[in-house]
Amino acid sequence: MSTRLRFSYADLHQTIAHGVRQIIASDFQFDVILAIGGGGFIPARILRTYVEKPLIAISLARYHPDEPPSDIPFKLQWVEGVNNMITGKRVLLVDEVDDERTTLAFAIGELLAENPAEIGVFVMHNKLKPKKAVFPQTVKHVFVGKDIEDVWVDYPWDARDIVQHERDAAKGGVLEVDEAEAKAAYRN
Amino acid sequence: MSTRLRFSYADLHQTIAHGVRQIIASDFQFDVILAIGGGGFIPARILRTYVEKPLIAISLARYHPDEPPSDIPFKLQWVEGVNNMITGKRVLLVDEVDDERTTLAFAIGELLAENPAEIGVFVMHNKLKPKKAVFPQTVKHVFVGKDIEDVWVDYPWDARDIVQHERDAAKGGVLEVDEAEAKAAYRN
Repeated sequence: MSTRLRFSYADLHQTIAHGVRQIIASDFQFDVILAIGGGGFIPARILRTYVEKPLIAISLARYHPDEPPSDIPFKLQWVEGVNNMITGKRVLLVDEVDDERTTLAFAIGELLAENPAEIGVFVMHNKLKPKKAVFPQTVKHVFVGKDIEDVWVDYPWDARDIVQHERDAAKGGVLEVDEAEAKAAYRN
Repeated sequence: MSTRLRFSYADLHQTIAHGVRQIIASDFQFDVILAIGGGGFIPARILRTYVEKPLIAISLARYHPDEPPSDIPFKLQWVEGVNNMITGKRVLLVDEVDDERTTLAFAIGELLAENPAEIGVFVMHNKLKPKKAVFPQTVKHVFVGKDIEDVWVDYPWDARDIVQHERDAAKGGVLEVDEAEAKAAYRN
């Protein structure tokens, strides 16, 4: 058995709105929203509803499809053609979750080569757990929608049966489920 | 007063799942999902849950921020750096709605210059109304999650108050609202 958190779409939308209020209350100004796809696509698009900034995307995959598994994410889509919105600009990088921080740290490290004026980070969820990387000193603003415990999260957009997912979320969203069943019910 | 349709997140997720079943039942094979941002980000990310294909994005804005309004969308982000996933490949282009078809027709026209093997189209909603463009003959597969009447749609991701939005959607989702109030409550 495995513990799962299941949040409704509306709950996550509110979590993002909560995080945005922190951005607005801070002194962080930014020029562009940069989503890290696939996971950051939906949070970034919701965030954009609350801040009038252009939204662009990169896409990172855990592994290159044709190569052996590696700890280094693979750049499915990078910043070619939108460098002018990165270099010298203040970028708000958006992802769904800060888990072990591998993806975020990789993205920030690679983005620094583009010489942005500043990088801020927005994550919908931060898992309270040891991280495999620290944010570089140039990252002075990290916004978190919500801190969560270190258990597996099933996101609504990964649900094959969204009606069942929203029902589970409405009942509190903490479930003890059979591992194989959960794997079949969600994309991840 | 103005008529508005308000769909819940879960309803739209189901609409996309319904559209995906049409793709699977068709003879259309594709190599990559190409989201048209910002509107197509969320539908494309949900669609990816049901099909194991890489997801990349372009981003089109209605107008260039520094230039006078125009009928021609502005390429905020285009396919530089991901041309190898377009040229000679079969692309599934994804957007939230086929309204007057301006954005879709523009995107397809420009993508054809990259010489894809094929372009298919997936829209979550198709508005039953006259279109300002026809799809070129090379587009042989157009998948529609749901046909809807020609009224304004307030999407959940554009809601400033998602709790109110989901409540409206649960009550049937057809509202007669004050135009100014609706404009304040939604991003668009």
